[in-house]
Amino acid sequence: MHSPPLSPQLLNCLTPEENTGCQHGLYFQDGERRVDYILTYHIKKPSSSRSNRQSSRFTDNAFTRSIRRGTARLGRAPTPQPRGDPEVASQDHSMDYHVDDKRLHREEFEGNLRDMGMELEKDEDTKTPGVGFVKIHAPWHVLCREAEFMKLKMPTKKVYEMKQSTGVGAKINTLVNKATEPLYPNVEDNRTHNVKHLSYMFSREKQHFRYFIWMFKRSTISRCLSLGFTSLLGSGVYTDAYPLHDVSTHCNLLLYCFLCRKYFGEKIGLYFAWLGLYTQMLIPASLVGVIVFLYGCATVDDNIPSMEICHPKNNITMCPLCDRACSYWKLKEACGTARASHLFDNPATVFFSIFMALWAAMFMEHWKRRQMRLNYEWDLTGFEEEEVSDHPRAEYELRVMQKSLKKEHKTQKVLIEKEKLTCKDRLPAYMTNVVMMLLMIGVTFAIVFGVILYRISTKTALHMSNNPTTRSNVRLTVKTTAAIINLVVILILDEVYGAVARWLTVLEVPKTDKSFEERLIFKTFILKFVNAFTPIIYIAFFRGRLVGRPGSYLYVFESYRMEECAHGGCLMELCIQLSITMLGKQLIQNNLFEIGIPKLKKLIRYIKSKRRSFQEEEREKKLQRYETDHFLEPFAGLTPEYMEMIIQFGFVTLFVASFPLAPLFALLNNIIEIRLDAKKFVAELRRPVAARAKDIGIWYNLLRAVAKVAVIINAFVISFTSDFIPRLVYQYMYSPDGSMHGFVNHTLSYFNVSNFQDGKEPMDPQHQVEMCRYKDYREPPWSNTPYVISKEFWAVLAARLAFVIVFQNVVMLMSDIVDWLIPDIPKDISLQIHKEKILMVELFMKEEQGKIQFIDSMMPCGGKEKRNNHAPIARSRSIPHTHSHTHANNF
Amino acid sequence: MHSPPLSPQLLNCLTPEENTGCQHGLYFQDGERRVDYILTYHIKKPSSSRSNRQSSRFTDNAFTRSIRRGTARLGRAPTPQPRGDPEVASQDHSMDYHVDDKRLHREEFEGNLRDMGMELEKDEDTKTPGVGFVKIHAPWHVLCREAEFMKLKMPTKKVYEMKQSTGVGAKINTLVNKATEPLYPNVEDNRTHNVKHLSYMFSREKQHFRYFIWMFKRSTISRCLSLGFTSLLGSGVYTDAYPLHDVSTHCNLLLYCFLCRKYFGEKIGLYFAWLGLYTQMLIPASLVGVIVFLYGCATVDDNIPSMEICHPKNNITMCPLCDRACSYWKLKEACGTARASHLFDNPATVFFSIFMALWAAMFMEHWKRRQMRLNYEWDLTGFEEEEVSDHPRAEYELRVMQKSLKKEHKTQKVLIEKEKLTCKDRLPAYMTNVVMMLLMIGVTFAIVFGVILYRISTKTALHMSNNPTTRSNVRLTVKTTAAIINLVVILILDEVYGAVARWLTVLEVPKTDKSFEERLIFKTFILKFVNAFTPIIYIAFFRGRLVGRPGSYLYVFESYRMEECAHGGCLMELCIQLSITMLGKQLIQNNLFEIGIPKLKKLIRYIKSKRRSFQEEEREKKLQRYETDHFLEPFAGLTPEYMEMIIQFGFVTLFVASFPLAPLFALLNNIIEIRLDAKKFVAELRRPVAARAKDIGIWYNLLRAVAKVAVIINAFVISFTSDFIPRLVYQYMYSPDGSMHGFVNHTLSYFNVSNFQDGKEPMDPQHQVEMCRYKDYREPPWSNTPYVISKEFWAVLAARLAFVIVFQNVVMLMSDIVDWLIPDIPKDISLQIHKEKILMVELFMKEEQGKIQFIDSMMPCGGKEKRNNHAPIARSRSIPHTHSHTHANNF
Repeated sequence: MHSPPLSPQLLNCLTPEENTGCQHGLYFQDGERRVDYILTYHIKKPSSSRSNRQSSRFTDNAFTRSIRRGTARLGRAPTPQPRGDPEVASQDHSMDYHVDDKRLHREEFEGNLRDMGMELEKDEDTKTPGVGFVKIHAPWHVLCREAEFMKLKMPTKKVYEMKQSTGVGAKINTLVNKATEPLYPNVEDNRTHNVKHLSYMFSREKQHFRYFIWMFKRSTISRCLSLGFTSLLGSGVYTDAYPLHDVSTHCNLLLYCFLCRKYFGEKIGLYFAWLGLYTQMLIPASLVGVIVFLYGCATVDDNIPSMEICHPKNNITMCPLCDRACSYWKLKEACGTARASHLFDNPATVFFSIFMALWAAMFMEHWKRRQMRLNYEWDLTGFEEEEVSDHPRAEYELRVMQKSLKKEHKTQKVLIEKEKLTCKDRLPAYMTNVVMMLLMIGVTFAIVFGVILYRISTKTALHMSNNPTTRSNVRLTVKTTAAIINLVVILILDEVYGAVARWLTVLEVPKTDKSFEERLIFKTFILKFVNAFTPIIYIAFFRGRLVGRPGSYLYVFESYRMEECAHGGCLMELCIQLSITMLGKQLIQNNLFEIGIPKLKKLIRYIKSKRRSFQEEEREKKLQRYETDHFLEPFAGLTPEYMEMIIQFGFVTLFVASFPLAPLFALLNNIIEIRLDAKKFVAELRRPVAARAKDIGIWYNLLRAVAKVAVIINAFVISFTSDFIPRLVYQYMYSPDGSMHGFVNHTLSYFNVSNFQDGKEPMDPQHQVEMCRYKDYREPPWSNTPYVISKEFWAVLAARLAFVIVFQNVVMLMSDIVDWLIPDIPKDISLQIHKEKILMVELFMKEEQGKIQFIDSMMPCGGKEKRNNHAPIARSRSIPHTHSHTHANNF
Repeated sequence: MHSPPLSPQLLNCLTPEENTGCQHGLYFQDGERRVDYILTYHIKKPSSSRSNRQSSRFTDNAFTRSIRRGTARLGRAPTPQPRGDPEVASQDHSMDYHVDDKRLHREEFEGNLRDMGMELEKDEDTKTPGVGFVKIHAPWHVLCREAEFMKLKMPTKKVYEMKQSTGVGAKINTLVNKATEPLYPNVEDNRTHNVKHLSYMFSREKQHFRYFIWMFKRSTISRCLSLGFTSLLGSGVYTDAYPLHDVSTHCNLLLYCFLCRKYFGEKIGLYFAWLGLYTQMLIPASLVGVIVFLYGCATVDDNIPSMEICHPKNNITMCPLCDRACSYWKLKEACGTARASHLFDNPATVFFSIFMALWAAMFMEHWKRRQMRLNYEWDLTGFEEEEVSDHPRAEYELRVMQKSLKKEHKTQKVLIEKEKLTCKDRLPAYMTNVVMMLLMIGVTFAIVFGVILYRISTKTALHMSNNPTTRSNVRLTVKTTAAIINLVVILILDEVYGAVARWLTVLEVPKTDKSFEERLIFKTFILKFVNAFTPIIYIAFFRGRLVGRPGSYLYVFESYRMEECAHGGCLMELCIQLSITMLGKQLIQNNLFEIGIPKLKKLIRYIKSKRRSFQEEEREKKLQRYETDHFLEPFAGLTPEYMEMIIQFGFVTLFVASFPLAPLFALLNNIIEIRLDAKKFVAELRRPVAARAKDIGIWYNLLRAVAKVAVIINAFVISFTSDFIPRLVYQYMYSPDGSMHGFVNHTLSYFNVSNFQDGKEPMDPQHQVEMCRYKDYREPPWSNTPYVISKEFWAVLAARLAFVIVFQNVVMLMSDIVDWLIPDIPKDISLQIHKEKILMVELFMKEEQGKIQFIDSMMPCGGKEKRNNHAPIARSRSIPHTHSHTHANNF
């Protein structure tokens, strides 16, 4: 996060000392009107607009329409436009956008803005050549109108004290908050003051609260201006649009206090609140995880199975691990892995996975509550999802237009009714989607299979090598390289899948921006999730299970034996794979990609513009604030941040039974992550347009889905990957004395070496035995049905399946109980809401008391009322938020 | 439903011909003001009020307080009351309520009502002696104030056409609606007209819509009056309070069109809507159920296992079914049951239980949508749960008072802060609750066990009888009597449990009425559910499983062998038990209890009052409407109706795998039920106070819970109760030719008769065999480990458990997908809401256009505004629903 030598100006302004340096550019030339928004465009570069021609021709129609919509929405009748109708515009295919056209468009749009009451200032003579800036200032009355329109609540003078909860619970809460304060940033800005403003609908009369709206509603409101921009940007009329970073007031504040919501808007505020809660919730989880791990460490010497394996008198000969090249081996050699396995495969992990399932349920519940609290504190309770996102996207309108054109062409009639994209129209896109998704998932599977093949073949090749040091390092070499290959493949595919998902979503032509985003997220999530977890699922559930048995091994491509797990189950290997993937992904993807790449991009932008200008001396001059921001990377949405976190949530919950340290890793990562993210938003990206949001949308559903899948996966990990169930079955069904002694012997079947297929027996002449052992439940060679799956196998299988059923249903029931016990709305918030309601009622009553007799006398000058008592109260009647409803009758 | 000879007046008024007869009593003496509400009280009967003394002393404090609250709420300062403070009142323990006191109270309360603007008329000189009536009329301005206060929306003149959806889906829908119309009543009164009124907040200005509110909001509003009543009724100051049935306008309508919501309020309207949807949804379910059943009937002759059993060459000898008395028997004898079993135990039932799980998910989703639609059509979208139900109950306040008194007594200080009931205070009640619930469940289990014992012992006794006809009828006699005993016990316990649940909830002292209702429902639900389903669960999962094996049977009380199922699984018996319980419960409980008992009670009331009066000739005179209603049973809430339906829903979903005809039975019952319920509400019960509700509350959660449990129970029924899995396992693992031939032989183990315990062998001298067969997977006598559970058992068990896991997760996933695919808000409703929003925006914009320059000129006569342009639009400004918010500053 230290500024590179090339762009000291860009970053210096973020340090407190040079605040004043960035002050200019924040205001108009008169130094009074503040710049709320910046539009940029190319000047005098006709060649560069050529490249955009294709797209501009297509989006032209949508663009004019959206301008019209924008104006209509703000109460201004649309100016007559020559190419307004879809029919006309579509027949105008040969039209080209020249620079003059663009300027005309700009002038028209800017005229519209001025008509809406905006104040504009142009600046084409900046130090950044080739770029013209339009500064926009939204005056107070425009803000008022918009605020009222959007039903913003604003605080009134009437404040009342919020009751501080007392009692043990509250005290513990305070302590926890204090203890964790340094760990995560304080996202609830209202937490410290116990004063709540009683909010009413915004009303123009209360102008004395101007400062309040000034401070933190401005960026929200200026979002309204961006209504028509999307298509203007697409058509190349403007190149960029962004609000300015407000260094003077918030720069320091931001890095320390994370007042995200006031500065960035509710949507980003919610992200940080969510991340904060998640990180906070990870603390108990990692604590318990560490305790479970330590329990494993402490009991490793009391573990009878590993004691038996390591016992010096243990003389069990195991069958060779590969054909011909490998020899028989003594079970004693597996002592190390058996001891290590115990760290992750002990009864405490069962407890821990139940704990983590409940933890996930608790987390979801707490997030609901936190969201409710934030909604209340941020006065979003009355706010409904704005209709901005309900407008059809330009691409959708284009497709609809094309469709109706086609129809018109066919029927030779002008269609009046508006067309829709039906399922039939979308069928090809849907089919492509399904096929491509399956193909991508297939690619993931193929790559995992490729890595397996690599491991098998390398192992065989290395086993055959004559160099003894190579042979001794076989396992380590193969494992390390395979894990690295896996990781690299995951990282590369992650990027590829992101692009594929976007492409597929564009193909689908979703109607609205919201639906576009949701579909994109859903697809990206599925692909990335499959990508991240396929190798892990392979290790957990398939590795070592498709091996066959001595004398009848399964072969891939007729020569490679499927790989086995080390003795002691695959849990150990699963654990290693998990930690490598998790650490690697987090370190490389989050820190390298997320921080490094934006910096790099910024650098490239800066260098490009420098090269274009060839004016070295300009660099020394102070840049205007809007120019500084121009070099920053534009804000691309929160999807990557959420995606990264949800994949991490998957690592924390899905396989937690095998890796109790996952929450700790996640916690450490997140503590850094929050800080990096916040810094990135302030210093590396342009200030995003503040967006309002009540919830985290589709992410909540995805989290719920992950939490649900986690229950069943953990059930399977415990019962199938770990040796927990076989141990229990042995202890209660087969053990002669009810202890674990003899368990190791019980799990090993006998094999008569004379039954080896020809050419597969080990070549080592030193060891010659009659019987070797292998880990499976099969009949011994001397039974009537040698090597057939034994009764013990079925008994253990039944026990395993029964455990899955019991575990899944118990955990689901407990989660439901947690869900039911924790109310969705925190008690103090519902009390506050109730109190506010009572206050409102009191106000109403006060008013009611003295005026039953002159109910209809609201307009003293109007002649239609019979009773004309002028109440002093009636004077200050405000404009209600639905104040136009009486005019419904005039329609 | 035909009127008994005793009370022809009461019911005659419900027939169209005598409408006019009931018209008097609906208006005040002036014939103009309508009676909105009736209060009744005892007159001049000092002795009868004595019995109430204890309760009135206790509730006195709560009562005065609630009066004060009632008045305060309506804007009137409370009149100074002598015994208002809790300290004073509590020291006044010796005070007695005499008749004068009551009259004083009544006068005070009636004075308050008059002060609130109500108009009252007394009528003590009725034909019903000993009862005084207070008729209340709520004048228009009071209604207005209340309506505004409650934010009632009302229709304006502005109507717009709702778009009729076209396309195949809509056509199918119309067809279905038409087809099902005669089956269930039309609960959506808006369905036929496609015109929707654009609703705004209620405002007094729109008096020309008076008729609208008059018609169907009145009873809702008069509910407000009932605020202070609860305690007044408790203290015996008033004996009853009810609105009047409005025979003139709705009587006929109701019986045919079920305009429940307009007449009874939204809460009862929702019940009928729910019942309607449920019944409608039962149609496809019963159709598919019948098809599945017919499939079973059609394939019964192709079923290889039953063919093998019935084959004339089949010569398998089975072990005796009871000790000594019973003899060996031929498997051929089980031919009938084997064939019958196939009707319910075929692959189609697996499909059917998956179908029913999805059906339940669909039903829940559809109900959400229907609820949303009704909320929209009934203009409840802006309505929030009223705070009336948030007021503490009188019992709760009493307990709080007692507690603070105790504390004061201890500390000798007057406490100022209000006490709360903490967990510690409630611990004894909670403990009692838990213990009693467990005890009740234990009682249920004990009774089920008792019935089992009855069955076993009767069977043994009858087997030992010498009469051959008795012996041949053994099975039928035992089964019939046991089923009847079971049914009777369930019916009796149902009533007992209802009382116990109420008693336990009273013990708990919940704070609000809402919480009281929810706790009561929850407890009643658990008890009744356990009661209804324990015998069925026993048959499904335990019967025939705890039998032991020949030579080592399990004995209860050392002499009775546990009962076995007939050959072919217990599915057949489960099916019989289910149909008996379901039919019996529905016929007896619903029709006899629900219809018969209210009629009986009404009769008793009438006779009582008649006896009291000794004025036979009075009976001949026409009764006033309020007197007629006085004889009706008061409305006791919807709990019994919902409870009955949810238990039925349990029968339909929980064991549907064993009884595919359950939906059909339920459908037939419900078609009658809806009509009976509606008739009951109109003719048998007093008109309930109309209550608003947005949803069906806790019932929805209970339904969801039942649907969730249904998935797992069906999974277990299919895999453990039916022979589906053993058949599959045999076919794919053991069958030599992949067919089902040999399955019967495979499921039967061998027993060497010489291994019978002494004195247990059959006494019949005719049959003497060496080996007999029994249904179990055990090793044969000639193996190394005779009679030990065999490998096949474990394999089948593993397959069964695996099926449970697969079934449960697949069905849950599919339910989630259904949940996710069907949007919660119907598309047309969200379009309508969107359209309304746009209309509002347009109105706003129209207004905005011409008046940016005179924003603050709302009060033309006020001098404080600078700009005084009088806009004609500004005249009609209405009072907003939050129109007092500017006064917040005056506080």
